[in-house]
Amino acid sequence: MSDIAFLDHVSFNEQGLVPAIAQDADSGQILMMAWMNRDALLETVRRGEAVYFSRSRGRLWHKGESSGHVQHVHEIRLDCDGDTLLLSVSQEGGIACHTGRARCLFRKLDEGQWLTTDPVIRDPKAIYKEKHDE
Amino acid sequence: MSDIAFLDHVSFNEQGLVPAIAQDADSGQILMMAWMNRDALLETVRRGEAVYFSRSRGRLWHKGESSGHVQHVHEIRLDCDGDTLLLSVSQEGGIACHTGRARCLFRKLDEGQWLTTDPVIRDPKAIYKEKHDE
Repeated sequence: MSDIAFLDHVSFNEQGLVPAIAQDADSGQILMMAWMNRDALLETVRRGEAVYFSRSRGRLWHKGESSGHVQHVHEIRLDCDGDTLLLSVSQEGGIACHTGRARCLFRKLDEGQWLTTDPVIRDPKAIYKEKHDE
Repeated sequence: MSDIAFLDHVSFNEQGLVPAIAQDADSGQILMMAWMNRDALLETVRRGEAVYFSRSRGRLWHKGESSGHVQHVHEIRLDCDGDTLLLSVSQEGGIACHTGRARCLFRKLDEGQWLTTDPVIRDPKAIYKEKHDE
């Protein structure tokens, strides 16, 4: 099973999770941060698409499974301490956030207030026929 | 104390921490991910330089305090769930990692192995006169 030996270099936390940052491969923009367990990381490698672990639902979450907003993974990086992952991705539909925005990091601190800087590209009601997946 | 009301929109975890991603303002490269508590975030805003909370030392960590590799903060972003911060920074010395590399995310997954892709810019022994700070 040497093909999964790379997992041993990843420091999962006490909940068995590691943070994974998704960066747009073209723009360099940070889209989101989510969590992976061992299975999520393995599935991400196997599929070539981002699979996270949903803490709220307690199960693997294939990003885009209900919205169609899949993340195609070009590269996976690990930091010096082995406790942070960075994914370089192409974002299907150009929308990473469940609010219908390109990225989840759509607020910036401006004179002591969080200012929403990014527009909603598509109404979440139109994206998610049932309840949203993220 | 309305000038710190922005803190109420940040979802600190059960340890009182939130992950903070540092992105180079010029290159867009992700330099590192560290953690902040309320005081760290307040100090970051106050100083205009990244101040994290060191989990290993259990205290505030003014990034660069011993290496000189301070991060000048241009922008602070918050995600949709309020549980991830993104800092846009200028990295003093061009070295974010305690290994003497530009960024902590210096390994990439390559055919099932973590391949070190980034060179050491400066020997850590030369950076840290005493013990290293990160």
